[in-house]
Amino acid sequence: MNELRLVALSCTHQVRAGDDLVEIFLSALNGSSCTLEDRDVVVVTSKVVAKAEGRVVNFDGTDEHKAAIVEGEAVRVLRRRGTLRITETRHGFVNANAGVDLSNTDAGTAVLLPLDPDRSARAFRDALRYRLDVDVAVVVTDTFGRVWRHGVTDVALGCAGVSPLLDLRGTLDGNGRPLEATEVAIVDEIAGAANLVLKKAAGTPFALVRGLDPSFFGAGSVKDSIVRSPTDDLFR
Amino acid sequence: MNELRLVALSCTHQVRAGDDLVEIFLSALNGSSCTLEDRDVVVVTSKVVAKAEGRVVNFDGTDEHKAAIVEGEAVRVLRRRGTLRITETRHGFVNANAGVDLSNTDAGTAVLLPLDPDRSARAFRDALRYRLDVDVAVVVTDTFGRVWRHGVTDVALGCAGVSPLLDLRGTLDGNGRPLEATEVAIVDEIAGAANLVLKKAAGTPFALVRGLDPSFFGAGSVKDSIVRSPTDDLFR
Repeated sequence: MNELRLVALSCTHQVRAGDDLVEIFLSALNGSSCTLEDRDVVVVTSKVVAKAEGRVVNFDGTDEHKAAIVEGEAVRVLRRRGTLRITETRHGFVNANAGVDLSNTDAGTAVLLPLDPDRSARAFRDALRYRLDVDVAVVVTDTFGRVWRHGVTDVALGCAGVSPLLDLRGTLDGNGRPLEATEVAIVDEIAGAANLVLKKAAGTPFALVRGLDPSFFGAGSVKDSIVRSPTDDLFR
Repeated sequence: MNELRLVALSCTHQVRAGDDLVEIFLSALNGSSCTLEDRDVVVVTSKVVAKAEGRVVNFDGTDEHKAAIVEGEAVRVLRRRGTLRITETRHGFVNANAGVDLSNTDAGTAVLLPLDPDRSARAFRDALRYRLDVDVAVVVTDTFGRVWRHGVTDVALGCAGVSPLLDLRGTLDGNGRPLEATEVAIVDEIAGAANLVLKKAAGTPFALVRGLDPSFFGAGSVKDSIVRSPTDDLFR
C-alpha cells in the first residue's frame, strides 16, 4: 500500500552553538519508540541547525536593531511594510525579514538562517550513515509566507539524499498525452507535511517521514533545483 | 504518539459530468483496506470534482483556443510569457492559466476549476456524514506554481470541517515570548502532504489523512481564510 507516515520526535533540549545536533537527534530518537530505517526522511528545522552552527547574534529588542539585522542578512529588499521586509537572502530565498528569527531564541538574541542549508543537510545525513549505517534523506526546513495566499507553510531550505524536484515532464497521462507543469517540489511538500506534526511552541525540531516513494530519493540541492533565479522570475 | 498517516486510495474510474463522486469515493474506499473514521481528512483533487460538476469545455487543441479558454476563466492576467499566463481567477486564486487543465482530460476537452470548491468540499463532507455517519474533513486540492521557487505543489482550493489557518498568534514560545508569523496554512500543508502519495499519471484522485491534531478541526473556508485580497498583497 502507498502509505506515508510522519512522526514528531519529542525533544526539549535547548540547542546551543557548538552542540552536536546529530547527537541530540539520536537522543530524541532513542527516547521515542522509533528506529531509523533506510529511506526514511529526517526533517530538521532550520532554527536548531542555525543555533548549533552558531548563527546567533545579539539583539537589543528594538525595531531599529531588528531592521539592521534583517538588512544585514538581505542582498535585496523587495518590499517594505511597517517593520516587515520582504527580502532576498544570500541563498536566493525570498522571505520575510531575511529569515531572522526572534521566537524561541535565548533572551537578547536573534537566530539567522544557516549559511548553507544544503551543506548542513548533507553533513547531517553523512553523520547518520557513519554512526548508524543507515541511508536516509535529510530536509532542513523553515517557515515562509506566500505571495498570493494567507498563512505560512514550511518549505525546504536544504536537502540531501532526496530529489528536490520530481520531474514528470515527458510522463504520459492516463490518456497517453504528456503531463503539463509537472516538476513537483517534493522537498517542499515534505517540509509542509512534517510541519503538521511539529508543534512549534513545544520546540520539537525533528520529524521522521517513512514510506516516501523510492523513486523520490536521489541527488540534488535546494539551491540548485528550487531557488529561482531573479531573471527567471516573473514577479521580481 | 503524534503520528500522521496518509494513504492514496486506488481508483481508476474515469469521472464524467453528473457522476456521483461520493459514490466513486466509497467504491475506492471499499476496494482498499481502509475504513473512514471521525477526524479523518479526505483529500480530493479538484479535477475530478470539476469533471463531476460538468466543468468541462470543448478544446480544439490550438494555442489560440487554449488562450481564449484561459482568459475566459480569468478576471485578470498578471503576467504573460509564451503560452503561459499568470492569472487571477474569479475565486481570487493566482495561478498558471487560470487552472485550466489539459492533462488527464477526455480527448478534445479541457477541465476548468470547480465554481466554488469550498461548497464542493462541504457537499462532499455532508454526503459522507449522511451515508456513513462519520465526521470527517474534506480538502479539495489543485497543483499551483510558486513565485520565488521552482516546482509545483498541491494547495487547497476548498475545504470543509478543518480550520484553514491554525492561528498561533498570542501563543507563547518556549521562553514565554509571543510567537511571530504564526498563522499556519494547515489546509495547504495537508494538500501538499497528500500529493506525496497521489500518483498523478495513475489518476488516483483520493487520499486519506489520519492523525491530524484534534485542534485543527473546525469551521472555515479557503475563500475567506486563505485567499489574499489584492489590496493586502504586496506583489500584485
